[in-house]
Amino acid sequence: MSVTAARGFTASGVSAGIKDSGAPDLALVVNRGPSYAAAAVFTSNRVQAAPVRWSRRVIGDGALAAVVLNSGGANACTGPAGEDDARAMAERTARALRVEAEQVAVCSTGLIGVPLPMDRVTAGIDAAAAELSEDGGEAAAIAIKTTDSVHKTAVASGSGPDSGPRSGSGPGPGPGWTMGGMAKGAGMLAPGLATMLVVLTTDADVSAPTLDSALRQAVRTTFDRVDSDGCMSTNDTVLLLASGASGVRPDPAEFAEAVHDVCLDLALRLVADAEGASKEIEVRVVGAASEQDAVTVGRSIARNNLLKCALHGEDPNWGRVLSAIGTTSAVFDPDRLDVSINGVRVCRDGAAGEPRDKVDLSGRAVTVTVDLRSGDASATIWTNDLTAAYVHENSAYSS
Amino acid sequence: MSVTAARGFTASGVSAGIKDSGAPDLALVVNRGPSYAAAAVFTSNRVQAAPVRWSRRVIGDGALAAVVLNSGGANACTGPAGEDDARAMAERTARALRVEAEQVAVCSTGLIGVPLPMDRVTAGIDAAAAELSEDGGEAAAIAIKTTDSVHKTAVASGSGPDSGPRSGSGPGPGPGWTMGGMAKGAGMLAPGLATMLVVLTTDADVSAPTLDSALRQAVRTTFDRVDSDGCMSTNDTVLLLASGASGVRPDPAEFAEAVHDVCLDLALRLVADAEGASKEIEVRVVGAASEQDAVTVGRSIARNNLLKCALHGEDPNWGRVLSAIGTTSAVFDPDRLDVSINGVRVCRDGAAGEPRDKVDLSGRAVTVTVDLRSGDASATIWTNDLTAAYVHENSAYSS
Repeated sequence: MSVTAARGFTASGVSAGIKDSGAPDLALVVNRGPSYAAAAVFTSNRVQAAPVRWSRRVIGDGALAAVVLNSGGANACTGPAGEDDARAMAERTARALRVEAEQVAVCSTGLIGVPLPMDRVTAGIDAAAAELSEDGGEAAAIAIKTTDSVHKTAVASGSGPDSGPRSGSGPGPGPGWTMGGMAKGAGMLAPGLATMLVVLTTDADVSAPTLDSALRQAVRTTFDRVDSDGCMSTNDTVLLLASGASGVRPDPAEFAEAVHDVCLDLALRLVADAEGASKEIEVRVVGAASEQDAVTVGRSIARNNLLKCALHGEDPNWGRVLSAIGTTSAVFDPDRLDVSINGVRVCRDGAAGEPRDKVDLSGRAVTVTVDLRSGDASATIWTNDLTAAYVHENSAYSS
Repeated sequence: MSVTAARGFTASGVSAGIKDSGAPDLALVVNRGPSYAAAAVFTSNRVQAAPVRWSRRVIGDGALAAVVLNSGGANACTGPAGEDDARAMAERTARALRVEAEQVAVCSTGLIGVPLPMDRVTAGIDAAAAELSEDGGEAAAIAIKTTDSVHKTAVASGSGPDSGPRSGSGPGPGPGWTMGGMAKGAGMLAPGLATMLVVLTTDADVSAPTLDSALRQAVRTTFDRVDSDGCMSTNDTVLLLASGASGVRPDPAEFAEAVHDVCLDLALRLVADAEGASKEIEVRVVGAASEQDAVTVGRSIARNNLLKCALHGEDPNWGRVLSAIGTTSAVFDPDRLDVSINGVRVCRDGAAGEPRDKVDLSGRAVTVTVDLRSGDASATIWTNDLTAAYVHENSAYSS
């Protein structure tokens, strides 16, 4: 269902020839209105790709009519010519759709430092515009893949101010309002450097400030907590477009919850599709003095290469967990730390607890729970194991 | 030559049976005086092993008569019983050497969370005491190995206040003073979690405060800059013992330079022996507004898994370097960043420079030079590539 689950949107995905493989590599998402409210969250990386610079500027007025996305080239670190190319993508899209270039966001993903083949890109935009349809969401989601093994979509819906949102993979527009989304990303062992592109659409009637608030809050506890160092790549972009086509103005809290649910759904799909990973690891930190402490401890554990290797080898090496906790400035007493791995409390009071061999790590899902015993705050970080396949995928060719 | 290169020291290494393999696993280093001045730098990890807690306490008076070290078990996260074991190691050593327990530092390395087999440890201490000799430095260096493929030693010497230090692998005590050292460590892709033990000895006549100052300064620009996140493990310890047996009181600056040289020599041996690594990577950051900025940027690059994989695959992927720089808060302009890889300026002004295929990455040594073009400060961080062998070594068994 993807970005066309909600009423008021069309989308398409085509093969423009940007990728040598001939795989689909150019997508359009178009908001047909009646409202054009939009919000965005961009990478916090200070080295920002040209399309990010462009999109950051045009989102300033809280309105978007369309998004043009390409895979096969990041248009990052491409100098002034790259800036021109990003603008040209918006302008070509605007011309094809009869809107203003300043209403078009641009997203690119692929290798850094290589100019886009603009003749193919512009021809691809024209072809994609000709293929726009209310069923084009899947094609768009497929066209933004890079090393992704599957395309990623999610849908949620709500019936109005009096009921909660429903989340799941089905079943299209209900009597209320709907939200759909697509995501691209598969390098989640180092999200800081693997591009993540996300486009969410809704037919709810929501103002730009409300969209912005809901999106920032959702990203903070979902995409920002997938793995590692929390530093985004040069191109990461999360967009939320609202057409208002349902005519329903949802309760802000209910709407925010739906945005969170769709973002979490997509974030977990990114973890599940991480390059070369064999485990999906949930690091839950509880008993923290503050949410910030919980996040800091969780990230420290999640980016620990030695622990990632140990879990890949199905070794519940809790000593690595304690070492990682010890590198942080969070509030805790080293002699009062508890660690459970897949439900077995292998470390109690900072020392050995239940026997390691009680831990079953044969499955794909791993939960590491740390109790700092210093307060009531908690946070969850999601990550993956570190595998030889990951090394292969990231060393055998440029990505 | 190791820790017995300098006059006034004896050492030994024996197989105590702590390791199942039967390999040497217990070492003694003894200062015979006439001076017993000593200094130490310990892990900054807040989860500290029992031997670190013990040694931190006994170094308080700036004097040590001996160091007892074991491999095969870290005695970390072992609770109150672990504290008793560390103290028992010092007491047993003190009894064998007829010194006070408070004059004995203790170092342990191996798996976290497992109690030491104290009957074997104490018998090993007695055996090691019986084997002490002025030629025991190599045996001691061998006995502290864990996953190290080679033992690591270094020597430097100085003839007095009027000449500079000489550094190298030879040739024993000169007419002046000598410094020798041994190091253990091989997990340098994540030094934060791989134990590093270093013992340096000198026959120079140097006071404890001067030792302390020279050691801290040297560690800050050598061991602390080997790789990654700068967070040390639960057990990391660097000790410097001075016997004064040469009768020479060196110029403090010359002495400090010798300490630095020996530490750098040993640090580079750790990088060269990193688990599963195929490249030794020197990250040089120049043109920084401050040394702190240079260190921050260097560490950010050095701990970037995707870049480590790319360099393993001999791909000069400078986009990953820029992405890593962009995650820092250092002073720089993204459009004025220059990056050279093995001397080829592949990125100029934040965009593509010389062709990638001019870069020869076939050798083991790789230098990544970043010019932030924002000042005169610089720093070097040393790291390794990320390989399937690293994953194997850290997933196939507990370490």
